[in-house]
Amino acid sequence: MRIALLQSSGRPGSVAENLKVLDEAAGRAAAAGAGLLVTSEMFLTGYAIGDDVARLSEPADGDAADAVAEIAGRHGLAVVYGYPERAGDAVFNAAQLISADGARLTGYRKTHLYGPFEHRHFTPGGQLVVQADLGGLTVGLLICYDVEFPENVRAHALAGTDLLVVPTALMHPYPVVAESLVPVRALENALYVAYVNRVGVEAEFDFLGLSVLAGPDGVARARAGREEELVLADVDPAFLAAAREASPYLTDRRPALYGPLV
Amino acid sequence: MRIALLQSSGRPGSVAENLKVLDEAAGRAAAAGAGLLVTSEMFLTGYAIGDDVARLSEPADGDAADAVAEIAGRHGLAVVYGYPERAGDAVFNAAQLISADGARLTGYRKTHLYGPFEHRHFTPGGQLVVQADLGGLTVGLLICYDVEFPENVRAHALAGTDLLVVPTALMHPYPVVAESLVPVRALENALYVAYVNRVGVEAEFDFLGLSVLAGPDGVARARAGREEELVLADVDPAFLAAAREASPYLTDRRPALYGPLV
Repeated sequence: MRIALLQSSGRPGSVAENLKVLDEAAGRAAAAGAGLLVTSEMFLTGYAIGDDVARLSEPADGDAADAVAEIAGRHGLAVVYGYPERAGDAVFNAAQLISADGARLTGYRKTHLYGPFEHRHFTPGGQLVVQADLGGLTVGLLICYDVEFPENVRAHALAGTDLLVVPTALMHPYPVVAESLVPVRALENALYVAYVNRVGVEAEFDFLGLSVLAGPDGVARARAGREEELVLADVDPAFLAAAREASPYLTDRRPALYGPLV
Repeated sequence: MRIALLQSSGRPGSVAENLKVLDEAAGRAAAAGAGLLVTSEMFLTGYAIGDDVARLSEPADGDAADAVAEIAGRHGLAVVYGYPERAGDAVFNAAQLISADGARLTGYRKTHLYGPFEHRHFTPGGQLVVQADLGGLTVGLLICYDVEFPENVRAHALAGTDLLVVPTALMHPYPVVAESLVPVRALENALYVAYVNRVGVEAEFDFLGLSVLAGPDGVARARAGREEELVLADVDPAFLAAAREASPYLTDRRPALYGPLV
C-alpha cells in the first residue's frame, strides 16, 4: 500500500482552510496511487491554538469528520487526521482513521500528553492500543510523544500492528526523535512507522518536519525535509512478513523479567 | 569518571594472552586518568570458542577473576570484563565488575541469549538488574543483545542505574545497533551507556567495532571505528543530574497501560 505523508501545518485556527489543504493533498495522493493519507497532529485545527482548543474541538462524528469522510470517499483513499476530540466535558488530543469509503474505522486519544500546553487543554486517553484493518494491513494509531515511550510501540507490536501511524508535532530541539528514535522503534518491533510532522513556527513552537516512513528493518523508506511536502512511500506486506520472520525481537523477549515496568 | 572502552577481541582461546592484553590496556587507561576499564563480551576467553566454552569457563571467584583483580589493584582502576561463568553444571555468558582495590563488586549473567551458538552453550541468567556503586555512580551491567530490548534498559533506569555497561559482540550486518539503537536507549532512559564491542572476523562472526559511550542526551561522547582501539570518554555526574531533571521520560510513563508487556 502506498502511503502519503502530508507534512504540513495547514492554516492554524481555520478548520475550513485545513479541509481545503487536505482535499488538495488527497487529490495529489490519490493520483500518485496512495491508499492512505496521513496528516500531522492536530492538523484539522492547528496545534498552538491555545484557548481555542475547546471551541474548535468536535465529537468523533462531528461536522469536520463528515467533511473528511466526504474527501476520503471522493478521492478514494483512507485518511488519518489529527484533531481535538470533544466527548462530554473532556477534550482529547485525538486522531481518527477514515476509510476510502468514508467510514470511521477507529479513533485514538493521546495517552501520553506532552508539556504544560497539552496538560492544560487535554484529558489523557485511557486506551493504549487501537487498531483497524485497512486493505489487509493492521493499522494502529499513536500521537507524537507516545512513540517516544518504547512501551507503547511494543504494545502495538505484541497486538499485531503492521503499520503504526503517528501524527506528530515534533519541535526544536529534538530532531533526534525523527531521525533516530522512530527508525529504532520500527526496527526493534519489526513494523512500519509512518511519522508525520508539522513544519515552521507556530506561537512558541518551532516544528521540525523530517516526517518519515520507517520500515521494519529500521531504514527510512522516504524522508521529508523541513518544508511543507507531500511524501510518498510504500508499505510492502511481503517485506514485512519476511522481516518479522527474520526478527527475533518479539520471540526472544522474557516477559517474566519485565515486572518492574508495570 | 573517565571510562576506557577496550575495543578488542584479544587472542581468542587464550586466557593468558587476554590477561596480558587487559594488563597493557589497564596501564594505558590508568595513565590517561580512567577510573573504569570495560572489555568486550567474552573477552577473557574469546567469543567463537565453540565447544571450548565449558572448558574455559570458571566460577566468578576463579583464577582469572583473581588475575583481573590483581591487574585492577595494581593499576588502580575498576574493570568490567566478559567471560563464561561456570556455576555447578551451568555455564553463563557473564560479566563481572571488579573494583580498583580488587574486590568483586557484582556480576551479571546474560538474560537474553542470541542465536543458536549461545543457546547451545549457555544457560540464560535469571536476574535482569544487577548494580553496584562505583565512585558514587550506580553502575549496571547488561551484555550485547540484552540492550536491544527496550524493556531491559528501562528496568535499569527505573532502578536508578546511572551508567549502564554493556560488553558486546555485535556482528555484521547490524551496525544500526551501535550507531542508532544504543544512543536512543541512553536518550529514552536518561542514562549513560558504555557499549564495548569486539572487532574483526572470528570463525563465522564478523564483529563490527563501533564501540560508544552514549550520553543521557543520546549523543555519543566518543565513538570507535572498526579496528582495535582504546577509547576514552567521560561520565559527568552533574550533566547526568541535569539531563534527568530535564527529561520527562520516566515521570511521564503510564505503567497502568503497560500490562500487555509482561
